Amino acid sequence: MSYRRVALIGLGLIASSMYWAMKRTGAEVHVTGYARTAETRETARRIGLCDEVCETAEEAVQGADLVVLAVPVGAMGRVAETIAPHLKPGCTVTDVGSVKRSVMEAVGPFMPEGVHFVAAHPMAGTEHSGPESGFAQLFDNRWCLIVPGDADEAATAALETFWRSLGANTERMEVDHHDLVCAVVSHIPHLIAYTMVGVADDLARVSDQEVIKFSAAGFRDFTRIAASDPTMWRDVFLTNKQATLEILGRFTEELFALQRAIRTGDGDTLFEYFTHTREIRRGILQAGQDTSAPDFGRIKVDK
Amino acid sequence: MSYRRVALIGLGLIASSMYWAMKRTGAEVHVTGYARTAETRETARRIGLCDEVCETAEEAVQGADLVVLAVPVGAMGRVAETIAPHLKPGCTVTDVGSVKRSVMEAVGPFMPEGVHFVAAHPMAGTEHSGPESGFAQLFDNRWCLIVPGDADEAATAALETFWRSLGANTERMEVDHHDLVCAVVSHIPHLIAYTMVGVADDLARVSDQEVIKFSAAGFRDFTRIAASDPTMWRDVFLTNKQATLEILGRFTEELFALQRAIRTGDGDTLFEYFTHTREIRRGILQAGQDTSAPDFGRIKVDK
Repeated sequence: MSYRRVALIGLGLIASSMYWAMKRTGAEVHVTGYARTAETRETARRIGLCDEVCETAEEAVQGADLVVLAVPVGAMGRVAETIAPHLKPGCTVTDVGSVKRSVMEAVGPFMPEGVHFVAAHPMAGTEHSGPESGFAQLFDNRWCLIVPGDADEAATAALETFWRSLGANTERMEVDHHDLVCAVVSHIPHLIAYTMVGVADDLARVSDQEVIKFSAAGFRDFTRIAASDPTMWRDVFLTNKQATLEILGRFTEELFALQRAIRTGDGDTLFEYFTHTREIRRGILQAGQDTSAPDFGRIKVDK
Repeated sequence: MSYRRVALIGLGLIASSMYWAMKRTGAEVHVTGYARTAETRETARRIGLCDEVCETAEEAVQGADLVVLAVPVGAMGRVAETIAPHLKPGCTVTDVGSVKRSVMEAVGPFMPEGVHFVAAHPMAGTEHSGPESGFAQLFDNRWCLIVPGDADEAATAALETFWRSLGANTERMEVDHHDLVCAVVSHIPHLIAYTMVGVADDLARVSDQEVIKFSAAGFRDFTRIAASDPTMWRDVFLTNKQATLEILGRFTEELFALQRAIRTGDGDTLFEYFTHTREIRRGILQAGQDTSAPDFGRIKVDK
């Protein structure tokens, strides 16, 4: 990688995984880190996360060739404003947010002349969060979408090389298309999972104990997704409003069609729908994007 | 187990797993099997599934102490009518359907005097189906719900012992409560997953290739569920109409509330909702109903 000094602003799952992945490359890189709460900074120091944990974001970005904004999408603008006067001329600033239009609009105006802002979105994560949840392999064979907008080509190419060195594949995408694709493959699935878990919890005639006890029948997959970081997801929905509401509209339209089929006893419609969706799963397996082991391999099979 | 001869009617994932699990017990039990299509019967013979694969259901149930109806819920009544005259007096008939009210109403009337019908629902499965998808461990530590209705106590207790010998835990449940609980933990999650996958596939501005490529961000979990057997799920929704429509109504109500929060920028409502749903996940992990490994353990972590 071409960066000698990297600053991680925010020390959650993504930033901490980036740190361990950078160290795994064996490259000589000095990584500073900053987190908003003293507790997170203390934890980072205790577990050896970052070569140096700084008390302020301004301090962390001093002399950095690459500054990574790894805070919730709603906090990106504030952080950009804070660090802007302290950025090294010619450095690259990037982010790891799940929404790109709002981040580019929030961060861009604060960037000084000569500093390159290149937005990025590593599509990787787990349901865990915080500085202790990171691990070096998080990005292996996952996609990192690069949304350069009108950023400098050399700075963009260097960021792509960086992400590939952490194990990710990269692909460039136009900003609004990014936000739409992510609404489909990530944001709405999360919203639906949150909703389903909320419904189950709220139903007086079925106890939480029963919901938990019998969750293996499908429900528990939703609870994993719905255990993701609340702040991050709140910000995603607030900042990707347009695409989210569009896909949500399509979703309820389809759901109502299936509901009508159930109500009227239209088995053919249900059967055709359920047959068709199998194809998509097949495509995902063929593309190597998931395991074909039954139940994600959770069941131990000897045969 | 107290059954010497068991007949499996239908040779899909559940029945084939039951066969391998019965053999794993080491008990001396003779298992006959029947499947509707010649192709499935041939496959069963080829892979040694069942001690004897019969050409008709009537033949398969001859002399059986336990007859297991392992066909889609919508086919239970027809199968019951076919086998009824051939059942051994005093035998037990059970099923493995995901809906209980409709199965009991479809099967019950055909049962001859002296034959015990005890409905059951092993809450286990994978996204795979067919005679080759079964394995002995499928029921280990999973729940099998027993819905005896007014069935004979000795016959019910014997069936419970049988399921425990296959690795399952058993619990008795009242029929309508069963159908409601399953609508929450299984049927509606499946319907929602099917819908989400359908929406993604149908969106012209986001290609299937993109959906597949970037599915790891949440969407792929839905595709696994939506790859389940279409015939089975069509029948579930057609036969558990009342509970399905009730839970679906609750679901859309909640979804609309979250949609409104997104539209109006009400971050507090979203944050509170997303925080609360984390608790349910915690309960499932504490109850040992899922792995706490990040991303279901799909990611290999060395640390």
